[in-house]
Amino acid sequence: ELADLSEAQFESRLLDGMRVLITAGPTREAIDPVRYISNHSSGKMGFSLARAAADAGASVTLVAGPVNLPTPAGVERIDVVSAQDMYDAVLARTAESDLFIGCAAVADYRPATVVEQKIKKQNDEMTLTLVRNPDIISAVSASESRPFTVGFAAETQDVLGYAKGKLERKKLDAIIANDVSVAGIGFNSDQNEVILLTARGEQALPRMGKQQLADALIEQLAQLLNSTDPA
Amino acid sequence: ELADLSEAQFESRLLDGMRVLITAGPTREAIDPVRYISNHSSGKMGFSLARAAADAGASVTLVAGPVNLPTPAGVERIDVVSAQDMYDAVLARTAESDLFIGCAAVADYRPATVVEQKIKKQNDEMTLTLVRNPDIISAVSASESRPFTVGFAAETQDVLGYAKGKLERKKLDAIIANDVSVAGIGFNSDQNEVILLTARGEQALPRMGKQQLADALIEQLAQLLNSTDPA
Repeated sequence: ELADLSEAQFESRLLDGMRVLITAGPTREAIDPVRYISNHSSGKMGFSLARAAADAGASVTLVAGPVNLPTPAGVERIDVVSAQDMYDAVLARTAESDLFIGCAAVADYRPATVVEQKIKKQNDEMTLTLVRNPDIISAVSASESRPFTVGFAAETQDVLGYAKGKLERKKLDAIIANDVSVAGIGFNSDQNEVILLTARGEQALPRMGKQQLADALIEQLAQLLNSTDPA
Repeated sequence: ELADLSEAQFESRLLDGMRVLITAGPTREAIDPVRYISNHSSGKMGFSLARAAADAGASVTLVAGPVNLPTPAGVERIDVVSAQDMYDAVLARTAESDLFIGCAAVADYRPATVVEQKIKKQNDEMTLTLVRNPDIISAVSASESRPFTVGFAAETQDVLGYAKGKLERKKLDAIIANDVSVAGIGFNSDQNEVILLTARGEQALPRMGKQQLADALIEQLAQLLNSTDPA
């Protein structure tokens, strides 16, 4: 029992004193006051990671897009709507963070212009011009005193290939890849299975509940973080 | 006490034997497997109307877009995602319905093509071509044995003007107009205030909780329905 207790204490302190910044959920990009573009994301994975990081002793800030989820105990939550809002909230906190996990499904594009009044139906066809949103995780990894920067790659094909490309292109320390075309995992599901990739290798985490997976990921990331930072 | 009881019994039977079909929530129009276009709608108003109609003795079918709400007791719920799904679910049940209330915030347009794989970011600008979705409520009101057909007009300007135009153009029996530009009502709010319009006149229902408002609307609609149908 003593051994179990000390192990539990050790585990609960994996992120003791660490400041962790996590994004979760989708973003919404307004077309007009009633219409928007968004991405599928329940926010469950990011909220589970926030809870796991808090359980591991970290001081956690969760920047959340519009989701219907309760805030995990002890976590500071900042609600945002658009990718630009999320970018601003994250970049204001990047310098003070030790670990950043970009788990949100950020909209890559937003309508070029937001119409102030509801657009009335007129034609059979309508053309929407979209422009690129700022790339939050690239901005984090390019920041001067960058945190250990972890991204997600939710893909529907060649998942590992895209994930490796994203890891290098965005100069991430690690990336968590999952295949959202597989039924029963990802998005609105309660389960997930992922592969954690770094420049040094990859590790598969088999299908399990999102909270259990979040606990396992935080443990892995804490080990990476501690092995990277000699302090 | 006897008077109260008989009044309660009378009120609870305003829609006795009636079959009511209600749509609620937004629809989602897929751009690709991860992106979609949608409309702001919590579904609260439609779910409250379904509950109120069931409480009034009706047999209620609720066709719901993606929302996070529990199904009211005694209500048959059909979950749909896209406007086309909703159209199909509604039109299959129109002929057997006495009252239809179109409360869903149906997307007017959907992407012309749905891309099977996640679209990769490439250019700084992207053009999305949208095409019109089928008009559910116009199809209901044009159907051969049409139910008493009630629409909603969620507008941000000239609310009454647009509502009257919609009432006539879509050949509705009644329309419920609300100004979604006013803070604290509509969309994700728990309160609402509306104006109920028919060809014969209009009645304002002041700001109140959505369930209370739903009860009041069902009472008004039941009176209209009973005065329209001599049976």
